[in-house]
Amino acid sequence: MNSYKAPLRDINFLLTDVFNAGALWASFPKLEGSLDEAIAGAVLEEAGKLAGEVLAPLNRSGDEEGAQWRDGVVTTPSGFREAFATYADGGWIGFTGNPAFGGLGMPKMLAVHVEEMLHGSNSSFALYSVLSSGASLAIDAHACEELKTKYLPNIYAGVWAASMCLTEPHAGTDLGLIRTRAESQADGSYRISGTKIFITGGEHDLTENIIHLVLAKLPDAPAGPKGISLFLVPKVMVAADGSLGERNALSCGSIEHKMGIKASATCVMNFDGATGWLVGEANKGLAAMFTMMNYERLTVGIQGVGCAHASYQTAVAYAKERLQSRSPSGAIAVDKVADPIIHHPDVRRMLLTMKALTEGGRALATYVGAQLDIAKHGVTREQRAEADTRVALLTPVTKAFLTDTGLESCVHGQQIFGGHGYIREWGQEQRVRDVRIAQIYEGTNGIQALDLLGRKVLGDGGKAVDGFLSEIRRHAAEPHVEHRDALLAAVNELEDVSRWIADRAAADPRQVGAASVEYLHLFGYVTYAYLWSKMASAAQANLAADPDFYSAKLATANFYFERLLPRIEGLSACLRGGAACLYELATEQF
Amino acid sequence: MNSYKAPLRDINFLLTDVFNAGALWASFPKLEGSLDEAIAGAVLEEAGKLAGEVLAPLNRSGDEEGAQWRDGVVTTPSGFREAFATYADGGWIGFTGNPAFGGLGMPKMLAVHVEEMLHGSNSSFALYSVLSSGASLAIDAHACEELKTKYLPNIYAGVWAASMCLTEPHAGTDLGLIRTRAESQADGSYRISGTKIFITGGEHDLTENIIHLVLAKLPDAPAGPKGISLFLVPKVMVAADGSLGERNALSCGSIEHKMGIKASATCVMNFDGATGWLVGEANKGLAAMFTMMNYERLTVGIQGVGCAHASYQTAVAYAKERLQSRSPSGAIAVDKVADPIIHHPDVRRMLLTMKALTEGGRALATYVGAQLDIAKHGVTREQRAEADTRVALLTPVTKAFLTDTGLESCVHGQQIFGGHGYIREWGQEQRVRDVRIAQIYEGTNGIQALDLLGRKVLGDGGKAVDGFLSEIRRHAAEPHVEHRDALLAAVNELEDVSRWIADRAAADPRQVGAASVEYLHLFGYVTYAYLWSKMASAAQANLAADPDFYSAKLATANFYFERLLPRIEGLSACLRGGAACLYELATEQF
Repeated sequence: MNSYKAPLRDINFLLTDVFNAGALWASFPKLEGSLDEAIAGAVLEEAGKLAGEVLAPLNRSGDEEGAQWRDGVVTTPSGFREAFATYADGGWIGFTGNPAFGGLGMPKMLAVHVEEMLHGSNSSFALYSVLSSGASLAIDAHACEELKTKYLPNIYAGVWAASMCLTEPHAGTDLGLIRTRAESQADGSYRISGTKIFITGGEHDLTENIIHLVLAKLPDAPAGPKGISLFLVPKVMVAADGSLGERNALSCGSIEHKMGIKASATCVMNFDGATGWLVGEANKGLAAMFTMMNYERLTVGIQGVGCAHASYQTAVAYAKERLQSRSPSGAIAVDKVADPIIHHPDVRRMLLTMKALTEGGRALATYVGAQLDIAKHGVTREQRAEADTRVALLTPVTKAFLTDTGLESCVHGQQIFGGHGYIREWGQEQRVRDVRIAQIYEGTNGIQALDLLGRKVLGDGGKAVDGFLSEIRRHAAEPHVEHRDALLAAVNELEDVSRWIADRAAADPRQVGAASVEYLHLFGYVTYAYLWSKMASAAQANLAADPDFYSAKLATANFYFERLLPRIEGLSACLRGGAACLYELATEQF
Repeated sequence: MNSYKAPLRDINFLLTDVFNAGALWASFPKLEGSLDEAIAGAVLEEAGKLAGEVLAPLNRSGDEEGAQWRDGVVTTPSGFREAFATYADGGWIGFTGNPAFGGLGMPKMLAVHVEEMLHGSNSSFALYSVLSSGASLAIDAHACEELKTKYLPNIYAGVWAASMCLTEPHAGTDLGLIRTRAESQADGSYRISGTKIFITGGEHDLTENIIHLVLAKLPDAPAGPKGISLFLVPKVMVAADGSLGERNALSCGSIEHKMGIKASATCVMNFDGATGWLVGEANKGLAAMFTMMNYERLTVGIQGVGCAHASYQTAVAYAKERLQSRSPSGAIAVDKVADPIIHHPDVRRMLLTMKALTEGGRALATYVGAQLDIAKHGVTREQRAEADTRVALLTPVTKAFLTDTGLESCVHGQQIFGGHGYIREWGQEQRVRDVRIAQIYEGTNGIQALDLLGRKVLGDGGKAVDGFLSEIRRHAAEPHVEHRDALLAAVNELEDVSRWIADRAAADPRQVGAASVEYLHLFGYVTYAYLWSKMASAAQANLAADPDFYSAKLATANFYFERLLPRIEGLSACLRGGAACLYELATEQF
């Protein structure tokens, strides 16, 4: 099953009915009125075609062939080169890029949907693209004009690709421990030496050059995270006229054998005195990387949604076809030997769980995308600052909650198939394997939870979360709000829990990490409740225009509020179990 | 990481301190005093050695090589043949088998621990063994003396293996739909024709013969599940003197490419007029299969525990070694660049979750094993009947809850490794892939939940569940019971929820399937609360004898009651969302 159909109608609903994207875009001076909902629709349709016709057919073969390493050369699976060329020709890699260097300058609120289609059709392929987009963002934000002029146009055009080289064998979460060194040279360049691991797209055959962004330490750098600098290190040296010269002193030592995303090359990269250039200021490399983090983490969250939605599509098709036992309320397909399993309540529960979580996740990605756009394009400084705060607060939620629920959804999507879900046949087991990485990379979900609770919620004394909850309450105060009472009760619960933790965290610093994952999930369910209330309210307002479509939104919202939101009661109760019980066991007793 | 260490001390705690196995075994006339706790300990130590030294080293290579099919011949991975011979020589396949035919007649309460070691060290290998044990159980219970005499000794001895052939392409959950036919022959045998899929160990090179138990329909059989008969169909014909003759008319058409348990051959089996013999009565094949179901489902549950425990062992070792960031309460390994991650609260939370769920699952398997033994060996008819009811009630819980929490645990065990968990290196990703099947086969966990709620709880008007809850309350009424109040509150909640569902199920038959999975999970957490209360009470009573060991049990129990049991609040709240919201969406609207 390699078919994939982009959820264009659902996206249109979010952009038009729920978030009024047209008005938002019209308010951005830099867009100069170049984008409206009709154009956006055409663009997304094009992306959907690419995903369905070019990328989806390579998803399973890519998994089976995998990326191959031989003597430092990485070969991507059959068809990936051609697909990447087609994709690059469409301008998609520079979709949100800076127009001054050939990017299309499209808003992130639109890009999130393209990214969902990439991940839904072919997660391994998606990574080659989003890494280039992400790295070019850091270059655009922090590199000098010379580097930008030299590298950005070709990255945007997909002539060259890019990678991010952060992790080292002993330094993953704790990047302060990295050992890669950079020594300054007389000509202003640096010599980079060290080993990086888990480098997605560190080497491949899709482009003639790969531009690595590498974290390294200068000789006199302070210890820890404040002594990290960022360098641009091309695989092949680029002359002043833009022509390619000789190979730089770097190589791919091997690639990893992984659970999933097998067509994505995960590389060990050896830098052996490779020539590089400083991006941004010395010792401020982590800050420069964080520019792109909010974008990348949102993209990883979207991987959860994309895989979940693809799994849902396949599961729905199967559940409508597969005949097994009779519906509990009496035979439905009376002319058949049994009823389609979609009529069984537990199968419906799984499908609706997938549907409600996926559409909630897509709504959150759209919302955060819009906030990123406002932070960049908003007319007033206050607007931009508020959006920036909202993005910072919601980025860890988006990354972790969309991927945790993404795994849950893909597991349901596999379970619906019974034994047929465990074998390759329908591709459902690949979704589970592919989506699993999204909970791990780009900062594990445990780290996201610490970031949310420790830094974003408690770190500013609760201001950011208050701002968000005020927005939800303003929504709830509007006339004709669906699920108002349940939403407000959930917001109150989140506020209670936040206060409960804050009251204890000062006295016991372990309390933050002890509560963080359950807190993030609670935060996620409350956020989805907000978005499902918004979606249901929009659906109710438009019901007459397309009863079939909008009534499905209302029904899914009902399911969410009846059967999923109450999960917060368990999360809250477990979290209040506190930190002490985590430390009763001595380390040796594990 | 192929190391595996059997949890002998923990098993001894369960057998001796918690369940007083010695006294139970002494009460069984058939065991004739041949088994006590010391002998059991020696037996388990032997099994642990086999698992650690013979099976664990083949776990990863087995996954990488996989079972191979060529022209109908299935080759198991390197080392499997020798390992199977060693295992069979030890008498393990007939461990619980009937002594009249060469089995060892050991109690299931002991066998569950051997099975955990099998699954913990090598799930794929385990399947070849447990299928033979399970099939021989059905033969022993239902076949005529001639078949038993002819086949059981060689199966027990591991000279021959066995398989269960139930599923067909269009008939998985709904076995009433099977199309495989059996025609009676003049000599009393039958000709079996049809195709079976997902046949574990349907073909392999471990033994010179494979005895298939095949579900098929006689020409005049009633439609549906009441028209199914069970047949014994050997791969190679066996002469009256026990010597092997020619091949029977059956063959392995292909094997599946699966997410995990890759060293286990999952076969398409074609029966082309193969000769077989009826086992038990005509049209009562499903009942005959159900004899072994309680055993097999318990074993599959144990797969969840085995994989989870193996993942836990590896994760603990890694968490003690891996240095990353500082503990929130200040540096601990002051001479190192960072602290071992086991000091971080969220890592401890994941490890303790694995530990509490795994030990709870092991306790439940032990308890159900003991009940199976009482049902078989109990002195009075009342004892046997009560145990039988308890087994019937708890079998679906054990199968589904141990495997659902098994997946959760293995996912935690992978997550603790960050990126290193996603690659093959430490084997953590293989555990996730291997354990996943246990939620699917032997009746999906959704089907287990329906069996629990529909048949076992509501089907007898709540008598079985009342009996179990009375047992828990009797325990809680004893002096010196740990976690008494929390346990009783949880029992009350389960009772409330059971009543809530019963009140609605009569009016809305969809309510059972709508509530069943959350109900089963709730049931599982309450059952673990009972067992953790028992374990903590036993640990408290013995604390002085081994403070280090028993205090760890007390601490883990505290964690369970503080941080895991409260999950029931969410389950209860979600379940009460009811059935109606599952059916608001029309089928076409999915």
